[in-house]
Amino acid sequence: MDKSQVFAAAIDLCDSLTEEEDALTRDMVTRLADKWSLWTMSVLAATGAPLRFSRVMEQVEGVSQKSLTKTLRQLERDGLITRKIFAEVPPRVEYSITALGLEMLRHVEPFYLWVAKNVANFQTARADFDGR
Amino acid sequence: MDKSQVFAAAIDLCDSLTEEEDALTRDMVTRLADKWSLWTMSVLAATGAPLRFSRVMEQVEGVSQKSLTKTLRQLERDGLITRKIFAEVPPRVEYSITALGLEMLRHVEPFYLWVAKNVANFQTARADFDGR
Repeated sequence: MDKSQVFAAAIDLCDSLTEEEDALTRDMVTRLADKWSLWTMSVLAATGAPLRFSRVMEQVEGVSQKSLTKTLRQLERDGLITRKIFAEVPPRVEYSITALGLEMLRHVEPFYLWVAKNVANFQTARADFDGR
Repeated sequence: MDKSQVFAAAIDLCDSLTEEEDALTRDMVTRLADKWSLWTMSVLAATGAPLRFSRVMEQVEGVSQKSLTKTLRQLERDGLITRKIFAEVPPRVEYSITALGLEMLRHVEPFYLWVAKNVANFQTARADFDGR
């Protein structure tokens, strides 16, 4: 499969999704623009073990309790992480990444790292365009 | 480099970006959530030759003239495509994908295709969560 066929596959895909599938795809892609989601998933993946809320919060530097609560809830809803409650006093809650979450990270990280490495290129392009 | 080190690299990256770089990274990722941007870039990449506005519009099915104009302008500003004007009567304008744009497509398409293929998994996860 040559380069143009790869891109043609993407065109076919864009064209074949139902409106509902298309909306969900864009929803998941938008999720990535949220720094905390990717960072939280990466922390759970790198640790490779269940983590309590406070441990996640320590490692996702700068996140507020409110933002982390919202992020974890969204990730759980999308099946990317699990939340397990242990009937102790006080109750213990642990978060883990799922197989789906790991697979998503594997697919998104090369792109995210590439964008971050090319920030200067985008900045230059924008400055050129805006200066014309 | 094992799996956890890959994820650790992403964590370091999230942590090391300046606020400006972080905003730009998220801006580029958000761009992907816009169906037309990815589709337009894929069309220019798959054609492998400069295309006039009307030819792009034919291939990006369903896009309005207004949306395509905006999409092309944003992609040009980010250095992902070029716009070349030929001094003819009437003036001819042609769009091409840049090396940066091709590289971006190569990094994003595996992820986008993966998400689209997993739409059913996300739908099931959400239905489970919402049904609890």
